[in-house]
Amino acid sequence: MITIYGYSPSGNCHKLHMLLGHLGRRLDRDYRWIETDSAHGATHAPEYLAKNPNGKVPMIELDDGRVMVESNAILCWLAEGTSYFTGDAWQRAQTLAWMFFEQYSHEPYIAIARFICGWTPADSPRRADLPKLRERGYQALAVMEKHLATNPWFSSKDYGIADIALFGYTHCAADGGFDLGAHPAVRDWLARVRAQPGFVRMPPIADENMALIAQSR
Amino acid sequence: MITIYGYSPSGNCHKLHMLLGHLGRRLDRDYRWIETDSAHGATHAPEYLAKNPNGKVPMIELDDGRVMVESNAILCWLAEGTSYFTGDAWQRAQTLAWMFFEQYSHEPYIAIARFICGWTPADSPRRADLPKLRERGYQALAVMEKHLATNPWFSSKDYGIADIALFGYTHCAADGGFDLGAHPAVRDWLARVRAQPGFVRMPPIADENMALIAQSR
Repeated sequence: MITIYGYSPSGNCHKLHMLLGHLGRRLDRDYRWIETDSAHGATHAPEYLAKNPNGKVPMIELDDGRVMVESNAILCWLAEGTSYFTGDAWQRAQTLAWMFFEQYSHEPYIAIARFICGWTPADSPRRADLPKLRERGYQALAVMEKHLATNPWFSSKDYGIADIALFGYTHCAADGGFDLGAHPAVRDWLARVRAQPGFVRMPPIADENMALIAQSR
Repeated sequence: MITIYGYSPSGNCHKLHMLLGHLGRRLDRDYRWIETDSAHGATHAPEYLAKNPNGKVPMIELDDGRVMVESNAILCWLAEGTSYFTGDAWQRAQTLAWMFFEQYSHEPYIAIARFICGWTPADSPRRADLPKLRERGYQALAVMEKHLATNPWFSSKDYGIADIALFGYTHCAADGGFDLGAHPAVRDWLARVRAQPGFVRMPPIADENMALIAQSR
């Protein structure tokens, strides 16, 4: 059985729930989830760092002790041989290109803005970063909107792991103060993702984080 | 013939030169290089953005007009079927994990510190970011040092594309003010990479950038 060390409100961690849901794999039957609160230091405990020196979630561990880190690499491994990672070498590399885009040009702005809004105190000096983060986040959303004007998905011709990777934080971009009103193609794509068989919704986030997000608006 | 749009001093672009060199492919015989000065706006020209809306280098273009972006995705495509991207699904995903690490936890600190030192004016307000960038960059180097204590390479059992991806900016980390004195395993790994057949050295950077780097020390 696969063990996932993840923090439920994290989009990076939720990606794994999503793919496993599509694959028909069920929590506690096919995989276990160890809640690992990265917002409160759990990923910097010595026993965690011994397995993942980079101190991030998610991480998976197999019964034989092997571990893998980096959400998008884990998606590639879990999706290997399934319809969620298909195509020839060119198409698979294009899927990876969108996953690298997600980690370099999207997540550092859209996920971090959400983290600052919901997981730092209302008077945190990090809030001064929000305007710049939103400017860069909107640039990423514009790139997505342009692609979606002529393509239904990011993963080659069919729905797959690049869509899951990008859904991770796009679906909750509003938590970080992003308004998708000017991004109709992104909104339609989010709806198409939610309609996929086995789609798993992110669990509700805690009241204290919800309250901080509401205050940030 | 493959056309590469790249900026020579960029570690992300140099990765492609490196892999093509290892594969025995020669500039102007097997691929062409169009110098694209991302530090002076060439990637934000309308004709470039029409091909790559994210406005970054490198980008490759095939004779039939297809394009691919994201240095590490391009490495995967070029290395497909070669000894530089081998192993079973688990091993290939581990190679990808290091490439995602490079783009998320390494490049945004080590490459950006170098850019600020060598490509922004000596009085740039961005220089105030350097202490934080160096702190995070050293964290990435510590993760690499720990891995290399028990593994010769980042790409599965043999030298490959994860090593090329990480070499891209680690080999010139000193330009951004990083001292590898406390990272003997990283230094030894850099030397092993340089000894690989077909290794291609990064071209010298321009005098004005060298001068700015020297002033930053």
